[in-house]
Amino acid sequence: MVNKVCMIGSGNFASAIAINVGKNVEANPELFDPVVNMWVFEEEIDGRKLTDIINEDHFNVKYLPGSPLPHNVRAVPDIVKAAEGANIFIFCLPHQFVLRSCAPLKGKIPKDALGISLIKGFQIKNGELFLLSEAISDLLDNLSMSVMMGANLATEIAEGKFCESTIGCKDYEIGRTFRSLFQTEIFRTQIVEGDSITVEMCGGLKNIIAVGAGFSDGMAMGNNTKAAIIRMGIMEMIHFVRLFHPDTQISTYLESCGVADTMTTGYGGRNRALAEEFAKAYPEKSFETLEAEMLKGQKLQGPLTAKEVAEVIHSRNLENKFPLFVTINAICEKEIPPSQLLDKVKYKNYKFVK
Amino acid sequence: MVNKVCMIGSGNFASAIAINVGKNVEANPELFDPVVNMWVFEEEIDGRKLTDIINEDHFNVKYLPGSPLPHNVRAVPDIVKAAEGANIFIFCLPHQFVLRSCAPLKGKIPKDALGISLIKGFQIKNGELFLLSEAISDLLDNLSMSVMMGANLATEIAEGKFCESTIGCKDYEIGRTFRSLFQTEIFRTQIVEGDSITVEMCGGLKNIIAVGAGFSDGMAMGNNTKAAIIRMGIMEMIHFVRLFHPDTQISTYLESCGVADTMTTGYGGRNRALAEEFAKAYPEKSFETLEAEMLKGQKLQGPLTAKEVAEVIHSRNLENKFPLFVTINAICEKEIPPSQLLDKVKYKNYKFVK
Repeated sequence: MVNKVCMIGSGNFASAIAINVGKNVEANPELFDPVVNMWVFEEEIDGRKLTDIINEDHFNVKYLPGSPLPHNVRAVPDIVKAAEGANIFIFCLPHQFVLRSCAPLKGKIPKDALGISLIKGFQIKNGELFLLSEAISDLLDNLSMSVMMGANLATEIAEGKFCESTIGCKDYEIGRTFRSLFQTEIFRTQIVEGDSITVEMCGGLKNIIAVGAGFSDGMAMGNNTKAAIIRMGIMEMIHFVRLFHPDTQISTYLESCGVADTMTTGYGGRNRALAEEFAKAYPEKSFETLEAEMLKGQKLQGPLTAKEVAEVIHSRNLENKFPLFVTINAICEKEIPPSQLLDKVKYKNYKFVK
Repeated sequence: MVNKVCMIGSGNFASAIAINVGKNVEANPELFDPVVNMWVFEEEIDGRKLTDIINEDHFNVKYLPGSPLPHNVRAVPDIVKAAEGANIFIFCLPHQFVLRSCAPLKGKIPKDALGISLIKGFQIKNGELFLLSEAISDLLDNLSMSVMMGANLATEIAEGKFCESTIGCKDYEIGRTFRSLFQTEIFRTQIVEGDSITVEMCGGLKNIIAVGAGFSDGMAMGNNTKAAIIRMGIMEMIHFVRLFHPDTQISTYLESCGVADTMTTGYGGRNRALAEEFAKAYPEKSFETLEAEMLKGQKLQGPLTAKEVAEVIHSRNLENKFPLFVTINAICEKEIPPSQLLDKVKYKNYKFVK
């Protein structure tokens, strides 16, 4: 059977990935239907509908201007219509919108369909943390979910710069199907079997670390301190994953989704950039203000994820184990100033036990 | 018995560390003699001897201008005189000079003395690699050696910016002695017992990775690619350490000496900076030229370490296992252009097995 792919989302990362997917389905007609539907949240840009612009001009002028989309990527404003006939679903939306956006798909997904989440973040209910891949699966009739995370700044993918990414999946065969969708000459995927929880959690947690790195940049703390903060963040990341997944594979942190993505995000991403401005402007501007000023409609994941994760930590009284994560959240919430970033972590001795 | 400390070396890192050591010996008279001798390779600066400048003005104007040295750090131009009465030796010199410089100390070190190497790099004999701590110990009558490595750019330490460092030692008690010498409010040390080989090797190998990161910067390859290069470098680092030390503790890579130092050096150090210029100017300038132009007498470790490590790899026919390391060396040697940096690593699938 030929697979039909639907991309749920059309931000800059979704659009960059759609370039790869569009090319790959065209190159593999024995595996894939040649048309990729992309669900686009409809907006008007200079009097034209964004879906019309994408379908006529083949540019996502709002979120990824300058990079042409393949002609076989078709923008569809209705999510149910976009999903029609599809059996492979790529979820790539800001994490706060995904469940609301996908609700209309309930009961409309084939039983043997495959989903993959490229979304960074978590879902929190009553102090309990759920992975978004789980939440999507629960919402959509137990859709089989994989994840893809990695050091993948969207604009650089779209510019054709080499990068790696990590596919986390239950079994290797599913991983290979997704690899054939995403991998190109300059976008290399590695498959991690049986540890997709770690892959996914790294993708969410690294944004918190990047916010901390951005605070340190805003205060001109230098390279040594920034490396120390990122290192302590990685230690908390590992400990946090282990709360939910005690048998985490240490090798997964050495894939692109782990230390590499944490580095890229901590040195180059928008969470870092906005956090730098936040610390510089403190206490003048909130993250909401900076988001409006700097992101042109894109949503920031770091402060929201910090809040969600802090909720889990507080509800379990584990502040002592995650001093950096809770400090970063407290700064985001303006409970304490950025100058207190190091106060609680300075003497913390993180122990990694195999 | 009160310990007497001798610092062997006076470059920018040695001087920055001497600030900590000078303060700590003064604050702990029950443990340490209050005067630290620092062996300084004598030079003339504007008609004055560097040792006189240090002893009279308390500034190392050549290598760490702007940061005062404590008055109890005394510059001594004769290495044998500097070592007189000392039983704790801190080695902090460019790795290509250390054995030659220390040769006069042979037979003059007390039997129960302790040494610690802060030196990044290796010694190579006939394609075999030796750790500098071993080489120093061999030269100096089996001096008991520890190491200290970490994300420690010298100027930032001297400016009082927070950082972490890793002390690798045979037993914890020795580690505590060194901690009491080096640790301050803003310089936190962590002790790694029984895996000092990994600590030391990370310190050398990260400079090779930083050269690769600098090449990618020089070619404007972007954040994703740079993270991929650093990640692949970390994988080769682990595999290389395991050639010599199959039972390496994975936790050691999560200390400051591991991923943190690799990050700092890959984003902020001078190996990165010169490699960026090398790639931009290719093939106009050699590293020797850039060193002369940019480093004011400091020596670059990365290209030299790349050459040493490549020699070991070639002599064992392990090119296939270390494509990044050998490619970085080939670029440094101008055998291939920087544009070929990714050619051999693009499809390499590094496997980490516990």
